[in-house]
Amino acid sequence: MPTLRIALAQVNSTVGDIAGNATSVRRWCRSAAEAGAQIVAFPEMMLTGYPIEDLVFRDSFVAASQQAIRQLAADLATDGLGDLAVVLGYVDADGPAPTSSAALPGCGRRNASALLFDGEIKATYYKHHLPNYGVFDEDRYFEQGRSLTVVRFGGVDIGLTVCEDLWQAGGPFTAACRAGVGLVVHINASPYELNKDDIRLPLVKRRAAEAGATVAYVNLIGGQDELVFDGDSMIVTSGGELLARAGQFTEELLVHDLDLPVAGKSANEPGPAPEPPARSSEAIDGEIRADEDMEIVRVAADAEPRPTTGGRADGGIAHRITDEEEIWSALTLGLRDYVEKNGFRSVVFGLSGGIDSAVVAAIAVDALGRERVTAVSMPSGYSSAHSRDDAADLAKRTGLDYRVEPIQAMVDAFLANLSLSGLAVENLQARVRGVILMALSNQEGHLVLTTGNKSELAVGYSTLYGDSVGGFNPLKDVPKTLVWKLARWRNADAARRGAEPPIPENSIVKPPSAELRPGQVDTDSLPDYEVLDAILTGYIDNDLGRNDLVAAGHDPALVDRVLRMVDVAEYKRRQSAPGTKISIKAFGRDRRLPITNRFREGT
Amino acid sequence: MPTLRIALAQVNSTVGDIAGNATSVRRWCRSAAEAGAQIVAFPEMMLTGYPIEDLVFRDSFVAASQQAIRQLAADLATDGLGDLAVVLGYVDADGPAPTSSAALPGCGRRNASALLFDGEIKATYYKHHLPNYGVFDEDRYFEQGRSLTVVRFGGVDIGLTVCEDLWQAGGPFTAACRAGVGLVVHINASPYELNKDDIRLPLVKRRAAEAGATVAYVNLIGGQDELVFDGDSMIVTSGGELLARAGQFTEELLVHDLDLPVAGKSANEPGPAPEPPARSSEAIDGEIRADEDMEIVRVAADAEPRPTTGGRADGGIAHRITDEEEIWSALTLGLRDYVEKNGFRSVVFGLSGGIDSAVVAAIAVDALGRERVTAVSMPSGYSSAHSRDDAADLAKRTGLDYRVEPIQAMVDAFLANLSLSGLAVENLQARVRGVILMALSNQEGHLVLTTGNKSELAVGYSTLYGDSVGGFNPLKDVPKTLVWKLARWRNADAARRGAEPPIPENSIVKPPSAELRPGQVDTDSLPDYEVLDAILTGYIDNDLGRNDLVAAGHDPALVDRVLRMVDVAEYKRRQSAPGTKISIKAFGRDRRLPITNRFREGT
Repeated sequence: MPTLRIALAQVNSTVGDIAGNATSVRRWCRSAAEAGAQIVAFPEMMLTGYPIEDLVFRDSFVAASQQAIRQLAADLATDGLGDLAVVLGYVDADGPAPTSSAALPGCGRRNASALLFDGEIKATYYKHHLPNYGVFDEDRYFEQGRSLTVVRFGGVDIGLTVCEDLWQAGGPFTAACRAGVGLVVHINASPYELNKDDIRLPLVKRRAAEAGATVAYVNLIGGQDELVFDGDSMIVTSGGELLARAGQFTEELLVHDLDLPVAGKSANEPGPAPEPPARSSEAIDGEIRADEDMEIVRVAADAEPRPTTGGRADGGIAHRITDEEEIWSALTLGLRDYVEKNGFRSVVFGLSGGIDSAVVAAIAVDALGRERVTAVSMPSGYSSAHSRDDAADLAKRTGLDYRVEPIQAMVDAFLANLSLSGLAVENLQARVRGVILMALSNQEGHLVLTTGNKSELAVGYSTLYGDSVGGFNPLKDVPKTLVWKLARWRNADAARRGAEPPIPENSIVKPPSAELRPGQVDTDSLPDYEVLDAILTGYIDNDLGRNDLVAAGHDPALVDRVLRMVDVAEYKRRQSAPGTKISIKAFGRDRRLPITNRFREGT
Repeated sequence: MPTLRIALAQVNSTVGDIAGNATSVRRWCRSAAEAGAQIVAFPEMMLTGYPIEDLVFRDSFVAASQQAIRQLAADLATDGLGDLAVVLGYVDADGPAPTSSAALPGCGRRNASALLFDGEIKATYYKHHLPNYGVFDEDRYFEQGRSLTVVRFGGVDIGLTVCEDLWQAGGPFTAACRAGVGLVVHINASPYELNKDDIRLPLVKRRAAEAGATVAYVNLIGGQDELVFDGDSMIVTSGGELLARAGQFTEELLVHDLDLPVAGKSANEPGPAPEPPARSSEAIDGEIRADEDMEIVRVAADAEPRPTTGGRADGGIAHRITDEEEIWSALTLGLRDYVEKNGFRSVVFGLSGGIDSAVVAAIAVDALGRERVTAVSMPSGYSSAHSRDDAADLAKRTGLDYRVEPIQAMVDAFLANLSLSGLAVENLQARVRGVILMALSNQEGHLVLTTGNKSELAVGYSTLYGDSVGGFNPLKDVPKTLVWKLARWRNADAARRGAEPPIPENSIVKPPSAELRPGQVDTDSLPDYEVLDAILTGYIDNDLGRNDLVAAGHDPALVDRVLRMVDVAEYKRRQSAPGTKISIKAFGRDRRLPITNRFREGT
């Protein structure tokens, strides 16, 4: 029974930075070799970043990817790593690249996994199942692979698969069973959402049983616009044993020795498949696409793997973190990568003393360090003393750069020149604040953060071009009730570590208010957030209709009012900043609704 | 040889307004009956509007559509029109509707065409080819139909097909040939883009030849967010003869008598297929999807059509309009429908005296009438006298509501409180104007129009939350050079009609300037627009890379500079207002690029 030392390189990559990503692969390959690994696997589309969206239509981009993977194979040999098998994802095209995306949408473009060895691309596999739901548009971009690639390496037959292949029944894992592979190297760019990690393990077990082979699952980490990838790489045997598992949200090289069946069997014995796990926004199992018999293409790496070193490697099983820590990690990593990958040095935002901006402040300081965070208190005549105190208190606790810019003089200049009343005056204050933040951004180079939560964004409880200004919104997919929960968790976590809780207790416990008119509180316009969030989760995350929500016990008149607010706020969301997806359905690419839409539930 | 009088109802519908759309169908059916029609065809998704996007995931929406089509069949019988065959599109689902879009993306949802007769749904066809490129996401939404429905009615076998079925070779038109149909009733929601009408006729001829049957093509008109549908309905024989053709951008009932082969043939003789036409953003012909043998399902309407009245009906062939008139019609209809379908009474925008806002003013007055249009001149210390004069001149020519709101006092209030210089001061002026327009919108209920053209949007030559504020942008997909061309055309057209040319000659001929600092002109920052637009068309519309553009004769350093500007402005476009698509690739749903993207062409 051959033993193979595998390294799963759970690493970050950046969309479009092909040269930088290739450099990262070479660096991690050196680490893998130093750890005695004989094969190392990187995530889906490691070389190009993921998702590349319409970049795939540009011939120059696809050609750069194809050129870079050949160069990488050669460079690894030059690095003395030609005897290390390297599996990684990139975008490929078969035949001459089409000259126009419009004439040939997605035609010939492939979401590919390559095995590099001995200075060459020894094998290539094209992703079979293409996700085209939620945030994914892969039917738009790629042509489906129709064959399973099996590479003989170190006496083991290894099948190559990519991401969605795991989420659908049949196809490559069934083919892997027929092919009698000893190992499936499964590369992923699977975005984080709450509870998805609880689904991945049973799903990997299910496919490992189906294939009758050990599955090595490696996932990307890092932020890309509205997505954040959480890692959670793992190795599972055909019998369902979890051999090793990496942590979430950190770069990590998971190195493990695998005793694998010798190559040459005609077929595997599939194990008893565990039940499919609960749903996430990635579709599960082949209710969707029919199973099919894929062709099996066999290639040989044609040489021995490098010898391993040291004793037996055990990757270990990382401890699982709580939901709150998971979300906090997602939000900090999502923000940090947006800032750094887009070349910003620092961020700025309005600090009102309320809970949303307080939590954004804590996230920003955790993500970037206090010296890169500027918060601006912009009090008006309607701002309460406690708001200013709470903002100042937070600034003291976190040590961020804190400034005060009263807005009344600027508001008055508008009021003196325009005849405004009511809502127009409320919105004016928010817009003056927006102008101040954008001016500071222009003058000092900060990225502006906007601090609206998912509940506000859902019902349109914000001022367009006012408090909604900003290039990124850390709370975009965080409902108000969860904002409070995260605040409490972050403070408690600090207390546990003997550190200063960053968020003033008063910001957590006081009734939320926009403070745009005297004595205003959110509950003037909105139901209690516990009630509101329950309705919103049903309507947005689960596509429930009015009658379903009423049947679930909600007040019919309230349901009608909330649904109407959500429907008519679509135009605001269409112009909103991106923010990290953490739920099963986030505003953005994930949820695509018309602005012009007269459908009213229950009427 | 039976004669059938067909009416093609080229009409408007509104997304989500199922009741209103059904009422419209009944009204047009009465008109069709009055014209002696025996069969009337409405566009794709007439009942629900198109595109409905993620509304399809809501069971309540799909159920409302299913309920409404049954009710419509009954209501038509009540109206005394049970003996009129009515073909129209709606969203259907087979089997119990799935309870979650995430678990079953698009599963069981159908883009359907129904034939109503005698108070019932006599036949249903499910769209076979689902477009999933450009603005279309139909693989996300619908399950593919696998059979062709053939209805025997008035002694003729009629095949039902939907939109994209025409754009792909094989599938239902081939099946229609095998089935020996006499007529294909082909319903569409095919969005306008420049030159697409020149492609449709040869394409309809090609499919008519393939089917060996007459094809009656009916298309939607009207605006829906970023799309506008132009009609251009037509009837073409298997031999390629154009029998009748409607105009573009207007509601119209095209009534024509067709002499059709008697039902019962086993197969048709396909004609010699003309060459496929040039490309548009809709993919053409089956380079993409393989042909397949579809099952043929035959039903009979089971009764005689109502008798016709009067002499022989000839729908005639509408005269073709120029490109400029076509685009102007698209922009006015797109704006009017956005305003009306979203319940606005009026629009407001900044009128600078420059060409962009002048053209927006002319479009708005043409779309809505001058009494619904407010334009605001917002001069600063840097605004030239000619700018103010040109704005006032336009106001006089068009008769719109014109106001002057100088911005300096408000700008000064910010400058007194913040330390700003350079670009921050320039952007501040634009943002003060944005605040004024939004205040007027809040106070008076206008929809704010933003006036940036496609060239500006491409290179980011605008101020986020400044001149970019607004709910709709009529020029979003109009490059600067085309803005000038449209202005000249509109003035010349007015002169031809003996009317007042709306746009001051000076706005057309003067060098464009943002007037945010003394003596500023666009060419300080940008190349001549003729050069810029040529590069942008290559890069954006045609996905050319840097080397392709250099090979086409553009200056390499300039190409690098322009491409870099386009790449880094993605974050601004992501927050931009919707606007009518007129090109092969518009910003919006049509072009999906990551914000975080380090790919730099040619480096």
